[in-house]
Amino acid sequence: MLDLAGIFVFALSGALVGVRRRLDVVGMAVLAEMTALGGGILRDLVLNVRPAAFSSLGYVLVPMVATLIVFFWHPHVQRVMPAVDVFDAAGLGLFCAVGTEKAMSYGLSPLHAALLGITSAVGGGVLRDILAGQIPSLLYDRQLYAVPAMLGSALMALLYTLDLHGWPTTLAAAVLAFGLRIAAMRLRWRAPLARGVTSE
Amino acid sequence: MLDLAGIFVFALSGALVGVRRRLDVVGMAVLAEMTALGGGILRDLVLNVRPAAFSSLGYVLVPMVATLIVFFWHPHVQRVMPAVDVFDAAGLGLFCAVGTEKAMSYGLSPLHAALLGITSAVGGGVLRDILAGQIPSLLYDRQLYAVPAMLGSALMALLYTLDLHGWPTTLAAAVLAFGLRIAAMRLRWRAPLARGVTSE
Amino acid sequence: MLDLAGIFVFALSGALVGVRRRLDVVGMAVLAEMTALGGGILRDLVLNVRPAAFSSLGYVLVPMVATLIVFFWHPHVQRVMPAVDVFDAAGLGLFCAVGTEKAMSYGLSPLHAALLGITSAVGGGVLRDILAGQIPSLLYDRQLYAVPAMLGSALMALLYTLDLHGWPTTLAAAVLAFGLRIAAMRLRWRAPLARGVTSE
Repeated sequence: MLDLAGIFVFALSGALVGVRRRLDVVGMAVLAEMTALGGGILRDLVLNVRPAAFSSLGYVLVPMVATLIVFFWHPHVQRVMPAVDVFDAAGLGLFCAVGTEKAMSYGLSPLHAALLGITSAVGGGVLRDILAGQIPSLLYDRQLYAVPAMLGSALMALLYTLDLHGWPTTLAAAVLAFGLRIAAMRLRWRAPLARGVTSE
Repeated sequence: MLDLAGIFVFALSGALVGVRRRLDVVGMAVLAEMTALGGGILRDLVLNVRPAAFSSLGYVLVPMVATLIVFFWHPHVQRVMPAVDVFDAAGLGLFCAVGTEKAMSYGLSPLHAALLGITSAVGGGVLRDILAGQIPSLLYDRQLYAVPAMLGSALMALLYTLDLHGWPTTLAAAVLAFGLRIAAMRLRWRAPLARGVTSE
Repeated sequence: MLDLAGIFVFALSGALVGVRRRLDVVGMAVLAEMTALGGGILRDLVLNVRPAAFSSLGYVLVPMVATLIVFFWHPHVQRVMPAVDVFDAAGLGLFCAVGTEKAMSYGLSPLHAALLGITSAVGGGVLRDILAGQIPSLLYDRQLYAVPAMLGSALMALLYTLDLHGWPTTLAAAVLAFGLRIAAMRLRWRAPLARGVTSE
């Protein structure tokens, strides 16, 4: 169920990017589906199992619902633009926790499980940005994006190693990553540039 | 054999985009192979089987032949440009039908089989556009592109559920999608934009 | 061990592209990991096995080390820019040889093994360029890039068929591809354009 919540918020972020880029409802739906399901599909391909997106009804329908909500819900799109980033942060948190947990349950080492959790968390957003013709915010946004997912995934992998799993654990890791991502945006936390490089 | 026909027309479309972007023969071949095989590879990765492209000789050689045809065939490239869209529509139709059929035969539900059929139909073109540095026409072209593939895939899934399969069924679904795509281009059928959004 | 060397040089090339695009250390690490591991992950997904990157510690850590070396190593980035291409050529050679060998050992035909070797050699660089918002040099750089990998992969597949494998064989194929790539850059070897097309 947490998985569906993550899919819903990521799909909202995808559909909102679609509106911002003036895509029609089909383009919005494609972006919503890819943002919501892309990270999990990458995760499942690496785990060598059939992607959950292709066996569950909810995984396909939830992004459709999100697309319709965005399609009808706001005549004045510009007003809610900051919300994209908050939805995106929530999806980031939920996906890194859920993805790491699934990877641990398939027997990956904690390091690799955390790496795959990060991949599933940022993968959908990267696919969304590439499809929308934007350079992935993962790379260019100097505000921390991957680092919160890293710490959330690391917490999840650590707790799982200590035999703590179930939804409270997953939620704790998700909230950690979400909170750090929001803090990074608000407080403008930044990762350092290489020596001799200046931001434009 | 329908599969090889789809691969041939997609490869032509890829090689023609390569000419339009002034790529050399190697770049043309890469675009032709990716356009022709990309969607099927994505489909087979999701189905968790070795991609057909990596076990069949024809799948690799047909795009090479298509590349050479495009390479030698027309000194006056501009004249045949509209043909790219027609070849693309034919590939779209064939791939959504063949992809949905293969997914059904691997036991996916009709909904997921149709979704995977659409993926295999549009995947190659999306990869082609991303590689060629263009925003995927799937998203930005307001003329319907994914919707014809959806209806063709849905017809294929429906007929398969009714125990109708074989090449006449596949061809019928392919022709439906092809015809709808051509009609969408000619008659400028368009998907709606979200409320309050205007096309530029 | 040759595999780790290829990963190291590709990661250097990825991190250096990150510096050139003024990315922070996180973006540099993402580019380094994707450039280094992307091709091998694509190869292993096609082979339908769990990607080596997600079971080996070294594969994940080596790109981190490469990122830190690039991060601290040069205050004067511009000076070493030509080195990116040399590192990239070395990675190209090592990956096409190692990738072809692995594909042969999984029972692919020599043609398909060579194709997959080329994919694993150029895949990481293509992902790097797409992520960095550049058109893949694979396509646009008129200097030969894929052709050296093709010849290195073909040599590897040929020798493997003759029952010659082990690190000297792999190294020979890698050196062939590396040498041809360097020669192509120095001597400006170029692939032909289609008839009637002129370079801008």
